[in-house]
Amino acid sequence: MIPHVFSIEPIGKVRHDVPDAEVSRRRSELVAEIELETRFAAGLAGIDAYSHLIVLFWMHRVPVAPWQPLVRPRGRNDLPLTGIFATRMRDRPNPIGLAVCELLGRDRDRLRVRRLDAYNGSPVLDIKPYDHYDLCTEIAVPDWWTRMTRHPSPTRPL
Amino acid sequence: MIPHVFSIEPIGKVRHDVPDAEVSRRRSELVAEIELETRFAAGLAGIDAYSHLIVLFWMHRVPVAPWQPLVRPRGRNDLPLTGIFATRMRDRPNPIGLAVCELLGRDRDRLRVRRLDAYNGSPVLDIKPYDHYDLCTEIAVPDWWTRMTRHPSPTRPL
Repeated sequence: MIPHVFSIEPIGKVRHDVPDAEVSRRRSELVAEIELETRFAAGLAGIDAYSHLIVLFWMHRVPVAPWQPLVRPRGRNDLPLTGIFATRMRDRPNPIGLAVCELLGRDRDRLRVRRLDAYNGSPVLDIKPYDHYDLCTEIAVPDWWTRMTRHPSPTRPL
Repeated sequence: MIPHVFSIEPIGKVRHDVPDAEVSRRRSELVAEIELETRFAAGLAGIDAYSHLIVLFWMHRVPVAPWQPLVRPRGRNDLPLTGIFATRMRDRPNPIGLAVCELLGRDRDRLRVRRLDAYNGSPVLDIKPYDHYDLCTEIAVPDWWTRMTRHPSPTRPL
């Protein structure tokens, strides 16, 4: 039997000095540190050989309002009502954030990464290396996604 | 204050008929269904417009032995001892699995996907659409990764 609720424990924290409200807009150039708890640091051995990482984090400052199945991406009224699982919005049933980041460097238990759009202080749940299986070159996305990212809104990417 | 342990609740289950021991080897052509719990199905609206998804799942059949900071990828003695976060091995501090999958089709609360290398029955935690921000064309991986995937081993765990 599988228990219905699982427990997870943070392995570290996200550190940067960008205010929450600016994280999404400044995502592309945002440089953050991942500060691992000491007892997990040995698990980083060899990570420097990768250029990119997938970081899973807990979106701990999501409003406590219940999630809605249909949302407007970035809260924009000109974008269609869309299922939450067809977006990367934060207010999901399980608020696990995922960011593909560029690895800039490592100093013992700290990683420096670019494009980690987590709020400062977010608990980190896992770090996975990005490999060729994660790279899909021929992809399709909805029209609204293309429209949205051509006309970026300061209120929210992800 | 951030609580130290978070709770997550599955949104659905992975269904296929491939035995656990063969999942990794047959990964590329493995076609699975994600069966969402009914109350989450409305959140799939519009997902069909994407070609690829990122599926997060709970690796529920990981041995209960404590995780080790250093592992040999796929358990192969010819591959170097490597930090767990520099691999995609299953026995991680938080056993959250991640697979980039091809979306083949949707039938109400069911998604058909290719390349989801979760064991049959795995609880699904989140479904995120794969978009152009997830696509990094210029990537570096360790030499052992290239060697490992050129000589695939049937024992490989993820």
